[in-house]
Order: sequence, then C-alpha cells, then structure tokens
Amino acid sequence: MLKEPTFVPVGTQATVKSLTPEDLESIGCEIFFCNTYHLYLRPGDKAIKKFGGLHEFTRWKGQLITDSGGFQVFSLGRDKNGAGKLTRITEEGVEFKSHLDGATHFFTPEKSIQIQHNLAADNIIAFDECTPYPATKKYALAALNRTHRWALRSLTEHKRLNKKLEQDIKLYGVIQGSYFKDLRAQSAEFILSQDFDGIAIGGVSVGEPKDKMRQAVEYVIPYIQKDSKKRPVHLLGVGEVDDLFDFFGQGITSMDCTLPTRMARGGQFLNRTGNQTHDMRSKFKSQIMWARFKEDQQPLDPHCQCYTCKNYDRAYLHHLFKAQELLGYRLMTIHNLHFMIHTTFDIRKALKDGSFESLKYSWLGRK
Amino acid sequence: MLKEPTFVPVGTQATVKSLTPEDLESIGCEIFFCNTYHLYLRPGDKAIKKFGGLHEFTRWKGQLITDSGGFQVFSLGRDKNGAGKLTRITEEGVEFKSHLDGATHFFTPEKSIQIQHNLAADNIIAFDECTPYPATKKYALAALNRTHRWALRSLTEHKRLNKKLEQDIKLYGVIQGSYFKDLRAQSAEFILSQDFDGIAIGGVSVGEPKDKMRQAVEYVIPYIQKDSKKRPVHLLGVGEVDDLFDFFGQGITSMDCTLPTRMARGGQFLNRTGNQTHDMRSKFKSQIMWARFKEDQQPLDPHCQCYTCKNYDRAYLHHLFKAQELLGYRLMTIHNLHFMIHTTFDIRKALKDGSFESLKYSWLGRK
Repeated sequence: MLKEPTFVPVGTQATVKSLTPEDLESIGCEIFFCNTYHLYLRPGDKAIKKFGGLHEFTRWKGQLITDSGGFQVFSLGRDKNGAGKLTRITEEGVEFKSHLDGATHFFTPEKSIQIQHNLAADNIIAFDECTPYPATKKYALAALNRTHRWALRSLTEHKRLNKKLEQDIKLYGVIQGSYFKDLRAQSAEFILSQDFDGIAIGGVSVGEPKDKMRQAVEYVIPYIQKDSKKRPVHLLGVGEVDDLFDFFGQGITSMDCTLPTRMARGGQFLNRTGNQTHDMRSKFKSQIMWARFKEDQQPLDPHCQCYTCKNYDRAYLHHLFKAQELLGYRLMTIHNLHFMIHTTFDIRKALKDGSFESLKYSWLGRK
Repeated sequence: MLKEPTFVPVGTQATVKSLTPEDLESIGCEIFFCNTYHLYLRPGDKAIKKFGGLHEFTRWKGQLITDSGGFQVFSLGRDKNGAGKLTRITEEGVEFKSHLDGATHFFTPEKSIQIQHNLAADNIIAFDECTPYPATKKYALAALNRTHRWALRSLTEHKRLNKKLEQDIKLYGVIQGSYFKDLRAQSAEFILSQDFDGIAIGGVSVGEPKDKMRQAVEYVIPYIQKDSKKRPVHLLGVGEVDDLFDFFGQGITSMDCTLPTRMARGGQFLNRTGNQTHDMRSKFKSQIMWARFKEDQQPLDPHCQCYTCKNYDRAYLHHLFKAQELLGYRLMTIHNLHFMIHTTFDIRKALKDGSFESLKYSWLGRK
C-alpha cells in the first residue's frame, strides 16, 4: 500500500515503455500500474501466473498495481447514455470485443478479481463501471448502484482467493458517481463503509474539461479525509503537475497517469520554467523538436538530477527526436518520470515540515 | 586503430539504436560506426563540430569510425551501368539529392574529408565510388581509376587537416574493383602502396550473392597479408556469423554490419544452436515471435552472459515483441551485439593460442 504521496507511472503491457526495472529504480520509482484488460488478452493472465505473476514476469521488485479492466472494457465504445456499441452490460457483468482480434469476452466482478489474482500485483482494484462523460443522471445512478453491487461481489471473491491462495493482496474499492455531487457523496459513503484495504476514485479523466474533473474529486475529498481507517486513496488516471499539488495536499495518496510517458515519446519534456503560461495544459512543458534547441548545450532541465540531464544536452536529444531514434524515447521517458516522482518527493517533504502551501504557491502561483 | 579482430556495430545517426554508451560498454563494444552522409544532412557536421565532435555529442568514450558518405550517395539510385538517377558523377565529385528533402548537394573527396574531420571520429575513410553489382568491366575500370585519384585527393586533404587542426585522426584507403579479379588486384596494389593508416575493402555487400561477396574479398586477401606495414584492414558492410570466422582468420581486423541490430528490432535473435540448417543465411538465427517461445522460461541463449540473458526469459521477450514494446528492441539489440562481439573475442583468443581451426570447425562444420 502507498501511505505517502506517490506518483505511479503506467506500464500497460507489463513494461513502462522503453525502461528496464533498473532504470525505474534509478529514478526513484516505487510502483507502476499495469492494465488487466491488456494483459488478460495478451499474453494472458494464466501464462503470467505460470511464471509466478507479474513480479517474476517483469523482474520488478517494487510494488505493482493492476486495474479491474473496467475502464478499457467501457472505453471501447458507447453512446452518451452509456449504451455500448462494442460492450453489453448486464447485472452479471460486461460482454466486450477484443481490440486485438474482435473476439467476444465476458468480464464479471469475480472474473476480474480472478484475473488480477493470477497477475498477482500487490494492489488490485474492484470491478466497476466507469461512467462516460457526459451521462444523464438517471443512467449515472443506475450504473452507480450496479457498481456498488459489483464492489461487494469483488470484495467477496477477493477475500476467498486471498484465503485460498494464502496471499495478502490489497483491494481498492472504487468511488464513482459521475459529475453529480449527491451521487459522489452516496458512493463515497458506501465504498468507505466497506472492508476495502484502499479507496480509489474513478470515473474522472474521461474526456471532461479539467475543472469538471477537479470538481468531481473535490466532492469526494471531505469523505476520504474523515475515513476512520485512514486508508490510502488512489486517484485513477490523473497526474499533471498541478494535480500533484492540488490533490496530494488534500489527502489523496497516489495517482497514476500515462501523460509523462506518452508526452516523452512525442518529444515533450517537463521542466519547471518551460513554456511560461497560465494555461496548465501547457505550463511546465517544452517540445524538444523546437528549432531553438538544435544547438542548445544545456540539459533538458538544468536543475534535474536524472540520468538524462546529468549526461546529455538538448541538442543531442533534439537530433535523436528529429531522426526518430529509439534512444530519444528512452532518455525522455527517464526525464519526465524523474520529474514527476521527484516533484512528488518534494511535496511529501513539504507536507511533513509544514512548507507545503509555500511550495505549492512557488510552483503554481496560486493557493 | 583496431589491431585485433573487432566487430563494429553500426550507429548510423550517432546512436546505436536504443542503446546508451553504458549499454555498449557493458557488452564489450570498443568502437561503433557512424554514417557521414546521414550526419552531414542531420544535424549537420558543423553543428556536431561546435560540440567538439561526435565523442562529445554522443558521450561515447570508446573509438568511433565514420565512412566517406560514398556508399549512401551512390546507393540512392542508378542503373546497371552505374549511371545515377539521383546522382551525377564527375571527375570533381558527386552531385546527389538528400533523401530527407530532395535538396541537391555536392560531395568531393576534399569535402568528405572535411566533414569527417568536423565529425572527428578516431578513424575515417577516403572518398570512393562504391561500384554497383552487377557492373560492366568497362564501367568498373573507369570507376576504379577515378576512385584511386579520389583516394590521393582524400589523403592530401586529410594530411593538411590533421596538421592544421593538430590532431591524429587515422585514414583508411578503400580497395574497390567490383567482382573482377584483375581489378581487385590492381586496386589492392595501388591502395597498399599509399600512405594510408588503414586499409578498407569496399564495394561488397551491394546486393550480390554471398559466394560472390566472399570471392571478391578472397581476391584481395593475399595482398593485405603481404602488407609490409601490417596495417589494420576493415571489411565494409559485412558481418554474419560465418563471416567472422572466414575473414578474421585471414587477416581482416574489423568489420561493421547493421544485421545484428536490424535483426534485433525485427525479433530475430542469434544463438549458437538456433535454426539448424546448412543455409548460412538462416543458421544461428531464431525468431522470438514463434509460438513455441510463448511460455518458454529459458533465456534467449542459455550460454550467453549478456544483461538480457542473465535477467529475462524468452516468454517475456515474446510478449514484448508481440505487443511491439520498445523495451523488446533494446533487450534484443543488447543480446545480438553481445553475441557478435563475444564470438569475436573467442576468435581473438583462438587465433593466439592456435585453436582457431578447431573453433571454426565446431561452429561452421567446415574448414
């Protein structure tokens, strides 16, 4: 479990793209996120179980977390009322088609938990329906109630497997409720009342404007802050620089996001002074392929201590990206993840020594 | 210079694809090959000179060798008489069009040497015309005589720049002569009579059958073996497993080849027992995406000591390649280069202790 603020890189297919476990260790990574949907389809959870689980398969000695598969199952296609084109939802579970070969599969809460126990990450997530944005309140309420019933089924199956397999995997229950304050409150109260090891906040980062995302999380914050069990709280699929400050400061303990790694492969690099703007969507970001970096002998971020910044200058990285060289993607991924993880370390420290508010202001220029 | 048998990986665009200098060191790499044509066009030799040359630009502390640009200039397009569609050859030099933007450029022997001095590798190569296969004898002779005149112009410009810049870059002259025994002999005698630091054999690996390639090299072998200066001899663009044994055993001291790295990115891995066949084109090679490797818990090559084989099994690599994950290309490149370099180390040792013939027989099943 993650008790302190932690940024969680995403390694969808049992690899954080381009990096070895040694690379991850060197940038301070403590955990990464794998996607159950992808690994169930390829190479298959049973194949991974034969190897003794994801840790043995990937050789990663830190922690791992898998999701329930729900997000990918539902994001394959549906209309604004939540009816899927490629998915069919019943009380029992969800039928969906593989993005690889179109074959039909069926996930239930029990099956999602069984797959996750085969993958054997340290932390797993209850099967939920990730409500689309926008959704009608009527649909969101029906989906929420079903998600709560699925949460209980997930919990039961999880306890059975933990006991049967004599293992101590931790289960996160997921708060949903779309963008409705009362539904978020209802879901927070329900999930917090159950015997989950951790709490996750889902159903955000589904294409909504950023202020909407922030609002949905804010609805839930008062409830998680009152949790008598002081459980860790994971925010699913969120993690821009401002999010680290806004959410770690309010009791969220971890968040995962594909942005730093995806940006890296596109040549975008994070740095504190990059692209001066009030728009958080582009603040802290620069693009290495900009012409002004062609002969720039500085590191990506002169204050950064990552392998890339200690050894390479912007001109070489500019060249690697212009030439579409694989080494560029790797060096940039190291930098962006180091940036997110070490900014999170700074936040941890500031929360302990009482300097958090001034640290946040120095970064964001606002409370 | 390379006095002992050395396999030279190719890093066309100032990077051996996917690897850092530390990776290269860890697999025993002593030198890699960069392409002047590519670096002249992008990022430009003058940009690299501003950084202090390729060593500073790439952070590689081992040796480097650049080619003259001739091979790429000529391989852009021409008919069987050697007349280029995109290149125009005169006594002065060669006009060609960039593969990046179609712009026209002009290389002369002097310009090739100036560019290579800007790039500042440890070893550089005289500007030559790489005769196509097949070529008429009439064309091959005319091209050869021009190449010899260009060799002298390259040598003069090289000596001028070494003196002016107070540096000690080594220059290789190139033996050409297509597939004609008398022309190869004539070229070997001419190039060996000049004051080059090293000798290169060019004009092979240009699309001909392998026995033709071997024959062209064999024509030259007696001459290089008689070289009173005992200069290093580099075979350009050759390097399958059998070539290591056939040519290092006869006085060739180094060869470069893109095959081990290109194969790696396509999922082919080298191993001594792989794909039992008498066809050298497929011997020692296996394809990680074959279904039989899906749940194989062995390393790529159980006898290999590379990072990849010490840490990963075939099933994980199979998964990475099926999922087209960047880490797969890197792990496979490490393995294939380690295989070629350490096989070369074994050859070095065997040549010293008199066991070369039996080592070669144990690998190839022939003398």
